Amino acid sequence: MVITSLENDRVKKYVKLKQKKYRDMYGEFIVEGYHLVVEAYKRGILKEMIIEENEAVPIEAHSVYVTYDIIKKISDVESPPKVMGLCSKVEYNDEVGSRILLLDGLQDPGNIGTIIRSAVAFNVDTVIFGRNTVDLYNPKVLRATQGMMFHINVIFDDLEEVIKKIKSLNIAVYGTKVTHGEDVRRIPVKDKKSYALVVGNEGNGVRDEISDMCDGNLYIRMNDKVESLNVSVATSILLYELGDMDE
Amino acid sequence: MVITSLENDRVKKYVKLKQKKYRDMYGEFIVEGYHLVVEAYKRGILKEMIIEENEAVPIEAHSVYVTYDIIKKISDVESPPKVMGLCSKVEYNDEVGSRILLLDGLQDPGNIGTIIRSAVAFNVDTVIFGRNTVDLYNPKVLRATQGMMFHINVIFDDLEEVIKKIKSLNIAVYGTKVTHGEDVRRIPVKDKKSYALVVGNEGNGVRDEISDMCDGNLYIRMNDKVESLNVSVATSILLYELGDMDE
Repeated sequence: MVITSLENDRVKKYVKLKQKKYRDMYGEFIVEGYHLVVEAYKRGILKEMIIEENEAVPIEAHSVYVTYDIIKKISDVESPPKVMGLCSKVEYNDEVGSRILLLDGLQDPGNIGTIIRSAVAFNVDTVIFGRNTVDLYNPKVLRATQGMMFHINVIFDDLEEVIKKIKSLNIAVYGTKVTHGEDVRRIPVKDKKSYALVVGNEGNGVRDEISDMCDGNLYIRMNDKVESLNVSVATSILLYELGDMDE
Repeated sequence: MVITSLENDRVKKYVKLKQKKYRDMYGEFIVEGYHLVVEAYKRGILKEMIIEENEAVPIEAHSVYVTYDIIKKISDVESPPKVMGLCSKVEYNDEVGSRILLLDGLQDPGNIGTIIRSAVAFNVDTVIFGRNTVDLYNPKVLRATQGMMFHINVIFDDLEEVIKKIKSLNIAVYGTKVTHGEDVRRIPVKDKKSYALVVGNEGNGVRDEISDMCDGNLYIRMNDKVESLNVSVATSILLYELGDMDE
């Protein structure tokens, strides 16, 4: 049976999940496209697949068939995929780990997704989303992660509280400044076994009250014609260096 | 005098410059916002400023005042700035330099702009746009460069031809592969004095015919859960390493 009505209750719920308040209320979110559906299945959080009529999907999961118009309505993109997944939010744990990335007020979903990919690539354990950072389950963030958010622990909390906890574990907390602090290339390997790195909003950087809590700042040496790098690039280079354990 | 009509010839030309064919025809392009107008002025290519009525801009240049509706029509963004600049295309030179980045078919303007910022940061001389790469003067690319395209040489050409020229200068040409080739961290300093790096399209990478011309491939060591990094991140890390001249 194919659902054809945009007024169908199930369809109305899928559409609501574009908004954070409903994702929080239901504890569910939508992923788009075959790749993310497979990743969600492997992670054990795929509840049902939403499939465009006549499309065959070789995954064993409850399937709901809908028209193209409905897919289009649920999707966040211009050219929607033929398969989507309704997922339960990932059950992340509370442990901060020992290689930690904190996001303070990032607003661009593409940047956040890209940063999560890089975090997994360079062996970060845990990404902490500050309250002022865009939602992980935002469709644009999910798309940019390419499913990597299933391979890392994520915590949503007040950064002040988390930083206190991290410091109580004797893990150094680094802020980021464009020119001040320590050249990340000079951090000795022994200091890379555990660390926490805070990165800030695209325009304003890390908030002062957070910056004040850091043990030091890291920077990337570069040509002085450039005021700053793109935040996802800068974060990725810092994580790349902090992930290098060669003597 | 304030231009108020969208039918004004000057206004019609500004709007046309959103399209590459007209930018190529006139040899001109539009930059948006105070920061880019200042950078264009410093580079000596600012022909006139397009200013929203009643706005004061402390730059000595021919000024054309227009209404908000006209600014909105010319602009590429939802919330347009109060000042824009009409510019002559930059007079780049033909010399390929000795630290060279080649772009093979990149399509995302944000990625290209971000990569140009990183190229300047890590002392690349010249960026080569292959014929199949999005135009440098695309408003979204310009915005993402943050004006850094005024601080680097740019060449638009067939990559095959340019690579032949680079090889005739005895400069090593590196392609990029996710896992094959040489770990970029292991490139000795003596090999970083001159190099050419080719990076490819977001989905498809470097074309085979270009890849076949390369002397070798570079990769970034990372966790094997990750298939690939975002292309602007990967390129920036490679340039960061190739720009490091410390022994």
